[in-house]
Amino acid sequence: MKLLEERILTDGVVKEGNILKVDRFLNHQMDPALFLEMAKEWKRLYEGCPVNKILTIEASGIGIACITAQVFGCPVVFAKKTKTKNIASDVYTASVMSYTTGNTYDVIVSREFLLPTDRLLLIDDFLANGAALDGLLELSRQAGAEVIGAGIAIEKAFQRGGERLRRAGLRIESLARIQSMEGRRIVFCDD
Amino acid sequence: MKLLEERILTDGVVKEGNILKVDRFLNHQMDPALFLEMAKEWKRLYEGCPVNKILTIEASGIGIACITAQVFGCPVVFAKKTKTKNIASDVYTASVMSYTTGNTYDVIVSREFLLPTDRLLLIDDFLANGAALDGLLELSRQAGAEVIGAGIAIEKAFQRGGERLRRAGLRIESLARIQSMEGRRIVFCDD
Repeated sequence: MKLLEERILTDGVVKEGNILKVDRFLNHQMDPALFLEMAKEWKRLYEGCPVNKILTIEASGIGIACITAQVFGCPVVFAKKTKTKNIASDVYTASVMSYTTGNTYDVIVSREFLLPTDRLLLIDDFLANGAALDGLLELSRQAGAEVIGAGIAIEKAFQRGGERLRRAGLRIESLARIQSMEGRRIVFCDD
Repeated sequence: MKLLEERILTDGVVKEGNILKVDRFLNHQMDPALFLEMAKEWKRLYEGCPVNKILTIEASGIGIACITAQVFGCPVVFAKKTKTKNIASDVYTASVMSYTTGNTYDVIVSREFLLPTDRLLLIDDFLANGAALDGLLELSRQAGAEVIGAGIAIEKAFQRGGERLRRAGLRIESLARIQSMEGRRIVFCDD
């Protein structure tokens, strides 16, 4: 998606260790006009698919997912991060290993909000190693819900999550796929 | 706002200890169509006010604030919760005391995203004791930004935050103000 790629080139900052900071428009300060265009693009890509609910993960997925749900005309549920072991009977729980920090945390969703009849679109801001998507897929599996696919804003295609998950059969629509960002120069896969 | 009050009566659940669960539509599962109507109401209430940025707090304020920013045609920034003391020079930091858990946590905002020229609308899902608003006001004060007012979805008017902050001069527009919820019966201030 050219609009997002251009915005990454304008406002993104590449830091040491393959870190791309996009907190000017995506995950700290957020641009709802950009999110609306992203949502319309996912709507176009998933046209004809029977999505009835959006599932995302706290915190930086929430804004994007909320505007995407608006465009899809459906509710959105966010998985909550929790540091305490949660084995309550009224929630689904999955562990997520953060490759950035090395820490593992649990994410939970109330059973009431993920149903076997749900056909989910998973939304998140980044895809790198796929840990967050793994967590959302595990929650969906526990609920018996169908996952139609995933919508990702920025995929770091030089990391392995996207390839691994697509091979496992997940449809993933990433609006910007970064091939490399060596020497602070960002190269997209479609360049 | 009748639409929100009716939704609280339909889908809200009153629990022991004056707790109102609205996670079916507001802060776990979220209804973007409702959020759009709430945003339009704040836009009407703050008509003519020079709001140029929305400020909210992680996590349950983000969805509401994002759609509100869409209606106001401005960016939105969310204050991030952090458990680690953050004294980095590039962020503003405020402490927030959660009355629910008794814990204190810090919220941070990058200095880059709060400017002395900003005219802020603060958005959050709940107002009870006002701890979250206190934190957002403190961040705004550090930045030298002007606070135009606050937009709250649900105010527990039987707790003291709203009265205290209005007395201190803050304009607060709460879309549903709850006078009492004894015996699980919810009474709104305008009933």
